[in-house]
Amino acid sequence: MYRPAARLADIEPFHVVELFTRAHQLQAEGRDIIHMEVGEPDFPTPEPIAHAAMAAIASGKTMYTQAFGLPELRQAISDFYRQRYGVDVPARRIAVTNGASGALNLAFACLTNPGDEWLLADPGYPCNRHIVRTYEGRPQAIAVGPQSNFQPTPAQVGAAWSEKTTGLLVASPANPTGTLLTLPEIAALAEVCRARKGHFMVDEIYHGLTYETDAPTACTAGDDIWVINSFSKYFQMTGWRLGWMVIPEPYLRDVEKLAQNLVLCPSTPAQHAALAAFRPETIAILEERRAEFRRRRDFLAPALEALGFRITARPEGAFYLYCDSSALAADSFALARDLLEKTGVAATPGLDFGANAPEKHIRFAYTTGVDRLAEAVERLRRYFGR
Amino acid sequence: MYRPAARLADIEPFHVVELFTRAHQLQAEGRDIIHMEVGEPDFPTPEPIAHAAMAAIASGKTMYTQAFGLPELRQAISDFYRQRYGVDVPARRIAVTNGASGALNLAFACLTNPGDEWLLADPGYPCNRHIVRTYEGRPQAIAVGPQSNFQPTPAQVGAAWSEKTTGLLVASPANPTGTLLTLPEIAALAEVCRARKGHFMVDEIYHGLTYETDAPTACTAGDDIWVINSFSKYFQMTGWRLGWMVIPEPYLRDVEKLAQNLVLCPSTPAQHAALAAFRPETIAILEERRAEFRRRRDFLAPALEALGFRITARPEGAFYLYCDSSALAADSFALARDLLEKTGVAATPGLDFGANAPEKHIRFAYTTGVDRLAEAVERLRRYFGR
Ligand SMILES: Cc1ncc(COP(=O)(O)O)c(C=O)c1O
Ligand SMILES: Cc1ncc(COP(=O)(O)O)c(C=O)c1O
Repeated sequence: MYRPAARLADIEPFHVVELFTRAHQLQAEGRDIIHMEVGEPDFPTPEPIAHAAMAAIASGKTMYTQAFGLPELRQAISDFYRQRYGVDVPARRIAVTNGASGALNLAFACLTNPGDEWLLADPGYPCNRHIVRTYEGRPQAIAVGPQSNFQPTPAQVGAAWSEKTTGLLVASPANPTGTLLTLPEIAALAEVCRARKGHFMVDEIYHGLTYETDAPTACTAGDDIWVINSFSKYFQMTGWRLGWMVIPEPYLRDVEKLAQNLVLCPSTPAQHAALAAFRPETIAILEERRAEFRRRRDFLAPALEALGFRITARPEGAFYLYCDSSALAADSFALARDLLEKTGVAATPGLDFGANAPEKHIRFAYTTGVDRLAEAVERLRRYFGR
Repeated sequence: MYRPAARLADIEPFHVVELFTRAHQLQAEGRDIIHMEVGEPDFPTPEPIAHAAMAAIASGKTMYTQAFGLPELRQAISDFYRQRYGVDVPARRIAVTNGASGALNLAFACLTNPGDEWLLADPGYPCNRHIVRTYEGRPQAIAVGPQSNFQPTPAQVGAAWSEKTTGLLVASPANPTGTLLTLPEIAALAEVCRARKGHFMVDEIYHGLTYETDAPTACTAGDDIWVINSFSKYFQMTGWRLGWMVIPEPYLRDVEKLAQNLVLCPSTPAQHAALAAFRPETIAILEERRAEFRRRRDFLAPALEALGFRITARPEGAFYLYCDSSALAADSFALARDLLEKTGVAATPGLDFGANAPEKHIRFAYTTGVDRLAEAVERLRRYFGR
């Protein structure tokens, strides 16, 4: 008797796990693998954050908290919005969550009726469409490309909007492309949604990891916008599973009901850790690392282009280069497999990110040092015979 | 524009939060509040577990893990099943989750089609029916009472099963009653579900906290049973948000897909902490605390009965006494409010646990020391004028 819910037929595993597992197998066999497939910073959690966690644990701060998290952490996040972006986001609108993942789950659970359609960029972060589907929504892909810097335009959103559409989710900086939305672009997308009485969600998980300009927050474009963020990437707390969400006022009670019933509360040690995330000494560490990410990107992008990869997006943030590999190989999945086997360089083929020419794209993460990136480039050079 | 999903109309907040908030307000005003409303152990996380977490954090073990958790933790849980219950549960069938909450979410998301009905005991843990509803299922209450020790019987399940029923969830020990199911009872319920090609889920989160006999695990009654557990209660790790689930083999891939997309992974520091949970020195601490819970129960139950509360369930486990308060007050919610204001004793009225005579019941948690319980009883004695 095997009777999973019908939704499972639409939910895909991470295809990259196959490559990832193979990479670790090769490593176990003694091969030197350069990991450029991993979507998390290689830096350890900054010392002040780790220290705050250990102090909290040592003093027994490990009980359940309120569903939306510690009031002082919500206040610290509110203060951060004021300091960093000059925008007033009251603490009561901020829910602390199990990573951005937890925030996305609560938001979609709160807003999605069965059959409701959500507009999502393709390529995009793969989990989004599966989270939507889990709450019985229907993800609708908007194919994005170099014309619009891999972000949906108001015109595209307007054209894609149907009777059944309930909202739009974008990410800035985006995964897998690292591209940004300007504040006017965010405002214009918000307007399109508002005009259609739809919801607008912006995933800002890669904020802080931008290398030309700071990314503007959608909080500035209206308090009817759902803003998702996380301690995972800029704050380098991936495994702690802590994020947050800025919720439009009318939905506070609804999201709180969901959080109470579905999660009880986010991790207490992680919350105490995060209280140290906004301290000047922590921010100093993070800003140094941001500069290091920039050096890596500035090394890797031209080096990959010299090999024949085409970077058609402006990778202004996150730690990814999404490359058009079609001049080098017909199928990026086969290419990724072959690169791994023959060169020990692990990268993520487009397959996980959607249905918009995935076979032509491959994502390199610069989540390893410049020396290793240089070694990777040298191996690729030999592989392609350049 | 306020347009939450329709499901939100069926999802209730925790009503006890109102009392809880009031209790903390009174406390802030200087009143001495005895907390018997709280569903978590008052003991700190055992030192070896806390220590393991700090060591992991200090050595930078804070990155994402596999979606189902660290292989060595899954193996440790598998070993625990062999040692404690003499049952073979292979590590590959064990998923580490964000508490039992995370396990319940994954299980219901995996098994529930829109409109599918789940049979749940009433009174029962309130989140269950709201989690079911979130995945577009329909909770169906089975009213349970003293006749069946507040557990559903095979006859009740058979009678309640409809065309639309997809499965049954029970808890042993149960919340709010602390009652147990014997292994033959579990096996008989499993048979009823099997005969109807339905799913059977058993929540064993209060295992280890039983005071006459050890609770038998449903893992012994068939590998087609979904078994939920957690590090929250027996292991006293509530705020860490870590639990696990034993998954029937055919569904492993489905649940893994969901875990990859919905949560990425459970908390890494918590997982490293939990590796120390099964060590003999930790178990020794836990068994001492179990004995202390027993002393509290053995003090509190007769004391409450002497005041006129009726304990109609056999409270063999967990840390709750679910009392019939109808001889003392018509409405347990009003009673709880009045007790809090006039005596500073906080307890949980039946309201949160379902629709089966909630106004006649109140739950006292013995999550505070015997001296405080004695003080509470004395205050209640004066309140009732005994
Ligand atoms: C765009 C985007 N959103 C959300 C997430 C979820 O991250 P977390 O749950 O660790 O905060 C990720 C992780 O890679 C991501 O890339
Ligand atoms: C019966 C029952 N199941 C599940 C849970 C969820 O606990 P956690 O998510 O902390 O493991 C609780 C918490 O009180 C409970 O009482």
